Amino acid sequence: MIDFQNIIEGIHKELKDEMNRGLVASYIPELSNIDAQNFGIHVKHMNGKSYAIGQWNVPFSIQSISKALSLALALPIYKESIWERVDVEPSGNPFNHLTLLELENGIPRNPFINAGAIAIADMLVSHFDNPKQAFLEYVRDLANDQSITFNYDVARSERQTGFGNFAAANLLKSFHNLENDVDEVLDLYFHQCSIEMTCEQLSNAFFMFANHGKCLQQKQHLTQSQAKRINAIMLTCGFYDEAGEFAFEVGLPGKSGVGGGIIALLPNHFTITIWSPGLNEKGNSLLGMKALEQFTTKTKLSIF
Amino acid sequence: MIDFQNIIEGIHKELKDEMNRGLVASYIPELSNIDAQNFGIHVKHMNGKSYAIGQWNVPFSIQSISKALSLALALPIYKESIWERVDVEPSGNPFNHLTLLELENGIPRNPFINAGAIAIADMLVSHFDNPKQAFLEYVRDLANDQSITFNYDVARSERQTGFGNFAAANLLKSFHNLENDVDEVLDLYFHQCSIEMTCEQLSNAFFMFANHGKCLQQKQHLTQSQAKRINAIMLTCGFYDEAGEFAFEVGLPGKSGVGGGIIALLPNHFTITIWSPGLNEKGNSLLGMKALEQFTTKTKLSIF
Amino acid sequence: MIDFQNIIEGIHKELKDEMNRGLVASYIPELSNIDAQNFGIHVKHMNGKSYAIGQWNVPFSIQSISKALSLALALPIYKESIWERVDVEPSGNPFNHLTLLELENGIPRNPFINAGAIAIADMLVSHFDNPKQAFLEYVRDLANDQSITFNYDVARSERQTGFGNFAAANLLKSFHNLENDVDEVLDLYFHQCSIEMTCEQLSNAFFMFANHGKCLQQKQHLTQSQAKRINAIMLTCGFYDEAGEFAFEVGLPGKSGVGGGIIALLPNHFTITIWSPGLNEKGNSLLGMKALEQFTTKTKLSIF
Amino acid sequence: MIDFQNIIEGIHKELKDEMNRGLVASYIPELSNIDAQNFGIHVKHMNGKSYAIGQWNVPFSIQSISKALSLALALPIYKESIWERVDVEPSGNPFNHLTLLELENGIPRNPFINAGAIAIADMLVSHFDNPKQAFLEYVRDLANDQSITFNYDVARSERQTGFGNFAAANLLKSFHNLENDVDEVLDLYFHQCSIEMTCEQLSNAFFMFANHGKCLQQKQHLTQSQAKRINAIMLTCGFYDEAGEFAFEVGLPGKSGVGGGIIALLPNHFTITIWSPGLNEKGNSLLGMKALEQFTTKTKLSIF
Repeated sequence: MIDFQNIIEGIHKELKDEMNRGLVASYIPELSNIDAQNFGIHVKHMNGKSYAIGQWNVPFSIQSISKALSLALALPIYKESIWERVDVEPSGNPFNHLTLLELENGIPRNPFINAGAIAIADMLVSHFDNPKQAFLEYVRDLANDQSITFNYDVARSERQTGFGNFAAANLLKSFHNLENDVDEVLDLYFHQCSIEMTCEQLSNAFFMFANHGKCLQQKQHLTQSQAKRINAIMLTCGFYDEAGEFAFEVGLPGKSGVGGGIIALLPNHFTITIWSPGLNEKGNSLLGMKALEQFTTKTKLSIF
Repeated sequence: MIDFQNIIEGIHKELKDEMNRGLVASYIPELSNIDAQNFGIHVKHMNGKSYAIGQWNVPFSIQSISKALSLALALPIYKESIWERVDVEPSGNPFNHLTLLELENGIPRNPFINAGAIAIADMLVSHFDNPKQAFLEYVRDLANDQSITFNYDVARSERQTGFGNFAAANLLKSFHNLENDVDEVLDLYFHQCSIEMTCEQLSNAFFMFANHGKCLQQKQHLTQSQAKRINAIMLTCGFYDEAGEFAFEVGLPGKSGVGGGIIALLPNHFTITIWSPGLNEKGNSLLGMKALEQFTTKTKLSIF
Repeated sequence: MIDFQNIIEGIHKELKDEMNRGLVASYIPELSNIDAQNFGIHVKHMNGKSYAIGQWNVPFSIQSISKALSLALALPIYKESIWERVDVEPSGNPFNHLTLLELENGIPRNPFINAGAIAIADMLVSHFDNPKQAFLEYVRDLANDQSITFNYDVARSERQTGFGNFAAANLLKSFHNLENDVDEVLDLYFHQCSIEMTCEQLSNAFFMFANHGKCLQQKQHLTQSQAKRINAIMLTCGFYDEAGEFAFEVGLPGKSGVGGGIIALLPNHFTITIWSPGLNEKGNSLLGMKALEQFTTKTKLSIF
Repeated sequence: MIDFQNIIEGIHKELKDEMNRGLVASYIPELSNIDAQNFGIHVKHMNGKSYAIGQWNVPFSIQSISKALSLALALPIYKESIWERVDVEPSGNPFNHLTLLELENGIPRNPFINAGAIAIADMLVSHFDNPKQAFLEYVRDLANDQSITFNYDVARSERQTGFGNFAAANLLKSFHNLENDVDEVLDLYFHQCSIEMTCEQLSNAFFMFANHGKCLQQKQHLTQSQAKRINAIMLTCGFYDEAGEFAFEVGLPGKSGVGGGIIALLPNHFTITIWSPGLNEKGNSLLGMKALEQFTTKTKLSIF
């Protein structure tokens, strides 16, 4: 049996005093004020055991990690029809996503680029009377923790500065791939990204992806096939244009966010969440990527 | 001396019953309802004489033709600094303009693509207390006709459906190339495009570009150098991705609009406005392009 | 225990009379003359057992499948330095690969697009005195079958018509990412693609990727880490711009070729080769893709 | 009457000691060895008079200036059918030309990007038994000077290092837009670019473009319409992605070459050739561009 606690403690010890931690996201004050010294790791094994070290219990902004959860909420509702509005191909290329969106006639490359996640948010707005509340309750339910909530300051700051997302939503609208008002859809989108969770809460919330769709409370949120498909998208598209590199170096499905969080998982085995706010030049947590490389090297656990 | 009246009558006679007139713009009801049979030509010679045939006295939506006038209004105010925010290169390529705007970090390729004209509108909003009124008065002044006005229905429809322009403005904003609120800038932009003018009013308003910057009322609105430069931009960028073709076939600076109007001019000689609402596949007036080709062939007048 | 023989027989029976088989590659006569009715499946399990149905024993042109093998030959020689000349990101996008190659300054997106495989071929030409012979012996060794050989007619036809590959190689050369003469490198490339193998031979040759780098004859060709990394690249880049779709639908690392062959594998479990010459619009075997989807659905075996 | 001699002497005096002269082309030794201090100007007026200063009588490599002459040779032969294989739109954009060529299915954007000139060269190879000799004689005829010849060292060096042109020619071939062998077509192309001419010889050779198609010896090489059209292409496409800037700043049709030559012309008035080997970052002669701006400012002569 692999000694997970020993392994993550070793990784934490080796990396925690690293001077080169990357740059903390600075586009809104609520993110730029986060202490770059934070570094937490939490592993949730399928057998129920947990392993943790560092600031694993400090809430942080989940940001783009929320895109995997909104996709998981929308997929059982819209089923295969979801793929008429969003594709599943990697976006990896030198262009920003508006270029691709325009070239591909308003069909986002995948649900994890901003335009794709905005299209998913639009579907949730169409389906729920109170989409923000529905999404929050879904996340609380998955993590089995009612204390999780939005950071309204973050959501407001994102709205005030998120011109790129307004551009993407309007471009989707111009291609008839947005049913609701731009403002209404982005209100959900900015709030879902503003949710704050700890490493532990994320490891628990993503448990279902490693467990064939069944969450910690044994509720079947996704079919086995749906869980498998979201895992595939996380592997090929979860890390912006570093997705190939991540598959190559780490070999696990996962999702990162600009708040410095990374969640990864090995089906049938575990979920792991790492948080370190400093980002590499591709926008993924610098220490988080290093820690995950070491983790899969030391455990020899990967899907490949 | 060239017999202009005889020439435009010949062209009008030959083309007026053409069955293939292209498609009238249909994205807003106010444009789609225009009768495709309209076909007017008006020539204003530097010697003061006018020549006209057909519906030269029916007002139509000037749309993108307004971009040459807003540039002419902004250039003497901002002078050379204007080119820090907008470039002067042709955009001719297979992409829509958001792609180029993103690739080029928010600097529009030229002032006649939508993003460029929106940046110019932003400059006018920064300068004038009442930019819509200032622009309208400028146009009335140039054409020496106080009856010219906005079509508020057109402006409102453009605002309700112009998601691509909202996307462009937000993208400019995300690159810090828009000083004012998106809504405020687009309010000017949609109104400037909604102005209705006749062929005669346009020929008169553009007189200054052919007359070294001096308008019909002998007021020097532009320096000789400024007039020359706007003429150069009209030649290289005035007809979307058909600009090279227009320079090649017609050989005159000009500007077209989706309302079916085309204005062209030969410095020191004349301005000519043609209106036929049906558009070719590039978005320029189909009969208008043909008529201009015939006009320069028959008069042998071109800058080349 | 899964009854592989029963499963592949069921798939074969269901699909073998399918009318819509796609189009056989027609750009050279040697490929266009292949009978579209061919349909073979071969599975090699880690436990040594084999399962087969249909034309599993008919040699066909492996084409791009050879790219995984040339990468496997080059990787232990050049080790990490290989990634200075070729990246590992998916290329999935609407452009052909020369565009990306030019935009990215001559560094191919990954070793499985043509330009990337040509760069790998260049490395082999630099290393071996007789690179064609070295590559052929490597493939024979992996498959444990000395009868495997080039189809010289195919190689010659590719050379006579492969202008796109000459363009790619010259573009690489212009970016100083090709050490040897264009003709010499492409001579290897066209020959490696021309190799003919049966489904069985391919399942055997790819055994090492599923077996941590150790081939059927128990020789350690790749380190465990190298095998894992090539598997990751096969998953994210093995199926042109259908790679995301393949990961999503099938969930196995694999590689396809324009000859209609597809090889896929599940680490620690099996390799599977399917051959049906008709291609879908993305250039992958139409029946092959369908058969693999059914195979992973029925066996419930996937990396996700 | 404008005192041309006085004007060009003033410009020459002001610029000849400029320290910032740009970088001399360095990709082949024959060009890199040229003395950057060379600076010549030659004006040929329609009235037959010539004006000159500096190194106007030193031969230099005409390079891309030859593209206007090869187009002029091909146009009367192929007439309108030429435009089925080459377009007339500006290429101005951030990509290199292979990207555009691929996106536009092998139809070069215009005859002055390399791919377009190679397609024109292909037409000449198809038409003439000895295309190199035919082209050279045409140029000698236009300039009325039998001493003009190829620089075979330059042609050989271009062939040895011109991988980008080999890539372009092969890409054209892959799109069936090249009739002859790549090597044969590029042999003409590299030789036409290697021709050496003086400022005076170029001013004389381009006289016909300013004279409605009739050369100095009064031979009608081009129809008036053909001359006009080539002038239009020179204005919109003659200066790479600085074409808009050149039209804007200078306002004359023209063509530049990487050897540091620029030829420009005002129809009915004059041709002017400037040579200074140092290039700006867009690849056009740095002093040449400045001198032309001053020339049109001082003479107030431009097409706009």
